[in-house]
Amino acid sequence: MTTFDVLTVGNAIVDIIARCDDAFLTDNAIIKGAMNLIDAERAELLYSRMGPALEASGGSAGNTAAGIASFGGRAAYFGKVSDDQLGGIFAHDIRAQGVHFATRPLAGAPPTARSMIFVTPDGERSMNTYLGACVELGPEDVEPEVVAGAKVTYFEGYLWDPPRAKDAIRECARIAHANGREMSMTLSDSFCVQRYRDEFLDLMRSGTIDIVFANRAEALALYETGDFEEAISRLSQDCRLAAVTMSEEGSIIVRGAERTRVEAIAVADVVDTTGAGDLYAAGFLYGYTAGRSLADCGRLGSLAAGLVIGQVGPRPMLSLSAEAKKAGLV
Amino acid sequence: MTTFDVLTVGNAIVDIIARCDDAFLTDNAIIKGAMNLIDAERAELLYSRMGPALEASGGSAGNTAAGIASFGGRAAYFGKVSDDQLGGIFAHDIRAQGVHFATRPLAGAPPTARSMIFVTPDGERSMNTYLGACVELGPEDVEPEVVAGAKVTYFEGYLWDPPRAKDAIRECARIAHANGREMSMTLSDSFCVQRYRDEFLDLMRSGTIDIVFANRAEALALYETGDFEEAISRLSQDCRLAAVTMSEEGSIIVRGAERTRVEAIAVADVVDTTGAGDLYAAGFLYGYTAGRSLADCGRLGSLAAGLVIGQVGPRPMLSLSAEAKKAGLV
Repeated sequence: MTTFDVLTVGNAIVDIIARCDDAFLTDNAIIKGAMNLIDAERAELLYSRMGPALEASGGSAGNTAAGIASFGGRAAYFGKVSDDQLGGIFAHDIRAQGVHFATRPLAGAPPTARSMIFVTPDGERSMNTYLGACVELGPEDVEPEVVAGAKVTYFEGYLWDPPRAKDAIRECARIAHANGREMSMTLSDSFCVQRYRDEFLDLMRSGTIDIVFANRAEALALYETGDFEEAISRLSQDCRLAAVTMSEEGSIIVRGAERTRVEAIAVADVVDTTGAGDLYAAGFLYGYTAGRSLADCGRLGSLAAGLVIGQVGPRPMLSLSAEAKKAGLV
Repeated sequence: MTTFDVLTVGNAIVDIIARCDDAFLTDNAIIKGAMNLIDAERAELLYSRMGPALEASGGSAGNTAAGIASFGGRAAYFGKVSDDQLGGIFAHDIRAQGVHFATRPLAGAPPTARSMIFVTPDGERSMNTYLGACVELGPEDVEPEVVAGAKVTYFEGYLWDPPRAKDAIRECARIAHANGREMSMTLSDSFCVQRYRDEFLDLMRSGTIDIVFANRAEALALYETGDFEEAISRLSQDCRLAAVTMSEEGSIIVRGAERTRVEAIAVADVVDTTGAGDLYAAGFLYGYTAGRSLADCGRLGSLAAGLVIGQVGPRPMLSLSAEAKKAGLV
């Protein structure tokens, strides 16, 4: 009775994207490359200082679900928007990509979450996220039949920021494992790891999650080490399967004593790194739920990540299915 | 007491942009390359059929004001949004570009206007515009001191679609001419010209407008002819100055018996033609109000138009001032 390849759960966010120079980040105390959590007042202040922008549906796990659907996978998503215009845009975009999305929107305040994303000339993105309606996601938003029918349920570490989303995740894990399914998470952001390090380790060590995604900085933050080999080795003890991305150096996939190295694809012009990790996870999980080798999972991840950083916006405008065919990966 | 180089007046619209193939246009009875006016019900239907999209502030005259400001010109804008999230985005983007925008937003319904723009593989855009709050623009929205202080007041032919915007334009013309200023309009769209042909000709022949912008199809529609030379010749009799764009063949500027031909700039990849005419007018009017030759006005127009069709979205993400310097035009 499998219905979905992957269910993803995350903060449902509309991105507001503008370019800036590095001085702007410094002047406004924005941590470069990070997800900076902001309140409504700071959101207003930063927006007043932001240049003309583009809007695009985002949210880490939302981007991953959209990516999986673009590859041709069957994807579902849980995330909380409000019944406002930005919420309508978010719901439209993820459904138009073919993702099942039925989380009941909030009636009224707080508004749909938005992240002001400043892209510096090097293509790096610095996010400033006002969580808005996301703070209302809770266990009542879990659709049990969707979890039970999804091969993998994947969620963001970012979900530890709102108050009750973690309860939704624990409920998902209970249902998934009772149905012989797998749970997966991304560590999301090195500052997020610093905020919830012990809880994330507990999720891994308790077997609540089976597959972990991280980038190098997040893996180092998780084990409070500067030694990447050490982080990888400890990760292999704490979870069954992990994929760690290393920007232009590709990724390493870790399963017990097994190590699989995968190259990044060449990107002529890094326009905007927003969504790179989300799309790596999309390619990987698309391959994983299709029964592909770990090396192929990594290659599909590299392809999707490479495509999204060559454009503005966090979800690839090209069909990932067509691009994977072109690259000989499917 | 000049305060602004150019004031522009238009329908204040947020663009919702997605790619589609030509069959989608046929299947949905969308006239390719045109501005298709739609009601709220059809807007909902088309949105339900539209793929994942990007949002960007648009509106023809809004794009022109943003372009003039990006060149370093002093620009102002009149246009009606609602006090909703899309209205907030529109107001933010035009002000963040440095344009004076103080039109009082509507409190409540109808919502801010949006145009669903479908971009086909050839880069052509087909617009589907729901006018929303724009139908409320009227003479009470004219800021007399802004009109009196602007060297040129420019408006869209599209303003003849909502009921009372034309009254605002007549009021602008009265103030502008009483203060020795000039009035300018774009014919906007060949179907728009068909709708309001007699009124547009009357605006020109009565001296209500001094400078006309058109593309080839609009010029032909205005004189109901298939003979471009005839259209140009009649245009030169009906208005003091006209600039007619001809896509990759550049533009021709007509002043009495004088003809100035200007080349288009080479564009490697036509991504999205949205905003091409608006940005041509921006470059032209920036040059015109800075006292440049007609040939230079046309070159500045070609530069801005060429830049905007190489990207997704109707307002150039690059600084036009910097690009004009690079091209040796300022």
